[in-house]
Amino acid sequence: MADPRFHHCAGPFSLAVLAEAGGARLAEGGDPRRAMRDVAPLERAGPDDVSFLDNPKYRAAFAASAAGACVVRPDLAGEAPDGMALLLSENPYKSYGLIARMLYPSPPVEPGIAAGAVVSPDATVSPEAEIAAGAVVEAGAEIAAGCRIRPNAVIGRNVTIGEDTEIGAGASLSHCLIGRRVRIYPGVRIGQEGFGFAIDPAGHVPVPQLGRVIVEDEVEIGANSTVDRGAGPDTVIGRGCMIDNLVQIGHNVEVGPGSILVAQSGISGSTKLGRFVVMAGQCGLAGHLTIGDGARIGAQSGVMRDIPAGQDVFGTPAMPSRKFWRWRTRLIKLSGLKGE
Amino acid sequence: MADPRFHHCAGPFSLAVLAEAGGARLAEGGDPRRAMRDVAPLERAGPDDVSFLDNPKYRAAFAASAAGACVVRPDLAGEAPDGMALLLSENPYKSYGLIARMLYPSPPVEPGIAAGAVVSPDATVSPEAEIAAGAVVEAGAEIAAGCRIRPNAVIGRNVTIGEDTEIGAGASLSHCLIGRRVRIYPGVRIGQEGFGFAIDPAGHVPVPQLGRVIVEDEVEIGANSTVDRGAGPDTVIGRGCMIDNLVQIGHNVEVGPGSILVAQSGISGSTKLGRFVVMAGQCGLAGHLTIGDGARIGAQSGVMRDIPAGQDVFGTPAMPSRKFWRWRTRLIKLSGLKGE
Amino acid sequence: MADPRFHHCAGPFSLAVLAEAGGARLAEGGDPRRAMRDVAPLERAGPDDVSFLDNPKYRAAFAASAAGACVVRPDLAGEAPDGMALLLSENPYKSYGLIARMLYPSPPVEPGIAAGAVVSPDATVSPEAEIAAGAVVEAGAEIAAGCRIRPNAVIGRNVTIGEDTEIGAGASLSHCLIGRRVRIYPGVRIGQEGFGFAIDPAGHVPVPQLGRVIVEDEVEIGANSTVDRGAGPDTVIGRGCMIDNLVQIGHNVEVGPGSILVAQSGISGSTKLGRFVVMAGQCGLAGHLTIGDGARIGAQSGVMRDIPAGQDVFGTPAMPSRKFWRWRTRLIKLSGLKGE
Repeated sequence: MADPRFHHCAGPFSLAVLAEAGGARLAEGGDPRRAMRDVAPLERAGPDDVSFLDNPKYRAAFAASAAGACVVRPDLAGEAPDGMALLLSENPYKSYGLIARMLYPSPPVEPGIAAGAVVSPDATVSPEAEIAAGAVVEAGAEIAAGCRIRPNAVIGRNVTIGEDTEIGAGASLSHCLIGRRVRIYPGVRIGQEGFGFAIDPAGHVPVPQLGRVIVEDEVEIGANSTVDRGAGPDTVIGRGCMIDNLVQIGHNVEVGPGSILVAQSGISGSTKLGRFVVMAGQCGLAGHLTIGDGARIGAQSGVMRDIPAGQDVFGTPAMPSRKFWRWRTRLIKLSGLKGE
Repeated sequence: MADPRFHHCAGPFSLAVLAEAGGARLAEGGDPRRAMRDVAPLERAGPDDVSFLDNPKYRAAFAASAAGACVVRPDLAGEAPDGMALLLSENPYKSYGLIARMLYPSPPVEPGIAAGAVVSPDATVSPEAEIAAGAVVEAGAEIAAGCRIRPNAVIGRNVTIGEDTEIGAGASLSHCLIGRRVRIYPGVRIGQEGFGFAIDPAGHVPVPQLGRVIVEDEVEIGANSTVDRGAGPDTVIGRGCMIDNLVQIGHNVEVGPGSILVAQSGISGSTKLGRFVVMAGQCGLAGHLTIGDGARIGAQSGVMRDIPAGQDVFGTPAMPSRKFWRWRTRLIKLSGLKGE
Repeated sequence: MADPRFHHCAGPFSLAVLAEAGGARLAEGGDPRRAMRDVAPLERAGPDDVSFLDNPKYRAAFAASAAGACVVRPDLAGEAPDGMALLLSENPYKSYGLIARMLYPSPPVEPGIAAGAVVSPDATVSPEAEIAAGAVVEAGAEIAAGCRIRPNAVIGRNVTIGEDTEIGAGASLSHCLIGRRVRIYPGVRIGQEGFGFAIDPAGHVPVPQLGRVIVEDEVEIGANSTVDRGAGPDTVIGRGCMIDNLVQIGHNVEVGPGSILVAQSGISGSTKLGRFVVMAGQCGLAGHLTIGDGARIGAQSGVMRDIPAGQDVFGTPAMPSRKFWRWRTRLIKLSGLKGE
């Protein structure tokens, strides 16, 4: 069970309630009133726990599990042990996530402005928002209902934040508009000037960065990541993007909805990503590129050219992944190294 | 036009004033009293806007632009459309940057110590400096006139900061001397101990880091970058260096004046960079190296040896760029992969 | 000498005291009562300074040094100049580090809660701990004696911190248990949710992250590094690990005791490192890997497979280092490029 000092379990809930929360269907034979107390992995789950089977390679663990209930795809339901209640779903991991959220809800927002927070009298803060100790909200900022501004976060002048958004401890925002149900993790930096200057041996001349950052609804931005504001156009993070820790996003970048950016990846100025692009860890994109919908960029790859929709790439400079691996295999063979 | 919530336009200004601000010369036929209200890119500019032509590949956009005025090199002036006022400059992007700064000046410093800031009675803060809410200034620190210390920044014991320098929200400084007109972005960490310890299976032993960080005038250090203090000698960032976000600079490193370090690059301990070195994104330098003046290090490259002045390098381990590209071409050819 | 504004020298101390502090033995002929004032490198040291010889390539500097005393391995003692007192040690750098710490001790903790700190009445803070201005300590947190919580750090709900640990300026902790004598540098983020969600075209679904972060005794975590909490199991940083700046550690990762992670390296979720693993700068590990004791991963390498104990690897994808270098040599030869 999760450490109760850090995670509050709201259970038990009946299977009927959990099935509904998870968008799953209780298979025949399951008792909708049966109560579940917790979630657990297949090997550790007991009769009061909900588990899940997502990756078919864990079928054996599924068949041997003592879990009281399990989320599973309908086609694998037949392999369940006797007595296990089945929650049928085409996307078991998603259903599991929703069920786990039901059992472990986010702690409720505690409305009000804590002692030690500094909120400008010219800011507009919903009475249903939580402003924690040490947070600073500057003039003109607007913070909607359900927001949680964590300790020592800084909300700059005229920044607007939509409903039910959380800004993590020590994060700082300026020159940006933040959507609803967004999660900005601790230490994130949004809206500072982009890296734009005229090169001059007598002293580089910074060029004013006159755009903004637009963060659409349901985006997550991981700890200590940085998103610079546009130079003239805006930097835009599309709806539902998932951005990991220590990611760098340069000025004028547009990241299409649903894209996934893994830790320590970086995007240079003015590059545009389509929808559902995946950037694996530590990869980088040069500036002024166009990356098509659904492109997938391998870990540590360095992309110097546009990528068409649906293409997987790998390496520095990046090439189509299949080509990369074939090339590598041939080079190892050519060099006579194989088998050493 | 820039969003007035975030960017205050101080215009209009006459062409005469803007030409002077930009170090440009108004071409014959231009009316020095004509007023300009804003800046805009060539395609979007109207009769009240100043634009610029820097990269000759945008000549067509220049010839078709409706901009009231444009900064341009003298040799391209002949291609301007009728009625466009020309601001002649050998470095149009620089002139444009200066003109844009005239139209969009940095917001004025608001002198004084905000409520919620904590300033030690033993610190020396100019009455002309701005200390924002939540900032902490420790004993012995000296903050000169024109400085802006943003919310929740931390200025450690005995740190000194020169005139007109800005320290971003949530940044922290210790064991350092900061010059004039420096810009430290949000979340930057300067002066913490370097990564120095004696390896010991019974428990590594940290070695005291007895140096400082010296940041010279007009340096910029991007969001969430880290600069460790020296182990004995100092870590030095030379005048006018431009450092992007999430850059790591180890102890005893010296970065020569005018160098440009792009996001997520890193420099290991005791490496010395000459003047006007360029490190592209995500590249890394091993420790104890010497990098000559004007060397340029390609994105994601890993440098393990000294680089002579003026050399471009690429790859991991890095080699001269021309050699890298020739090698790659041959390897692709040798492997029979070309054209797949 | 170190700048006294930033480094307080507690000396002089007698050679007898320093030898004991350093676990070294004063060689015959040295006067145990002789006083030393400072530490310095071999070339700059004078008669009141202690220096050290660790790397035999500096033997000439040793033989020519004016240092009053020097830490040295017994087998090199014979090369010392006349009049130099010798502190004999099998690990001179370690002994030097301990002696330097004696001369430059960490500034003493100043117990108490500073004005401008916000400590929940439901937190347990030792009267012998220092809570600096702007720090926030939430309900249920426990902070032991000898701790130093630096300005604007945030200690989340129910976090526990062991004796003599320092939390740097602006760092934030949640969902974690921190050991004794740990040093968390400025801007570090510990305990936020890991990067876990179910992929769904209709909107990715975050999966609750129900674990914690366990940081064992004597760990150091460098500036702006990030350590996510586990998804169900814990993320664990083993005793005495040395972690540099801007390092990313994903959920469920376990880092074995004594491991060394250089700047900007990253570890994906659920990967387990053994004891005394070394990750050089900017390298990355894929998820769900097992890295054996004493493995060493070269700078910028990308590891996609398990590594056996004691193995050195290099490259992306990483291979055994010797194999990498042989392969590269052959490829250069095959391509006919050598010597260009």
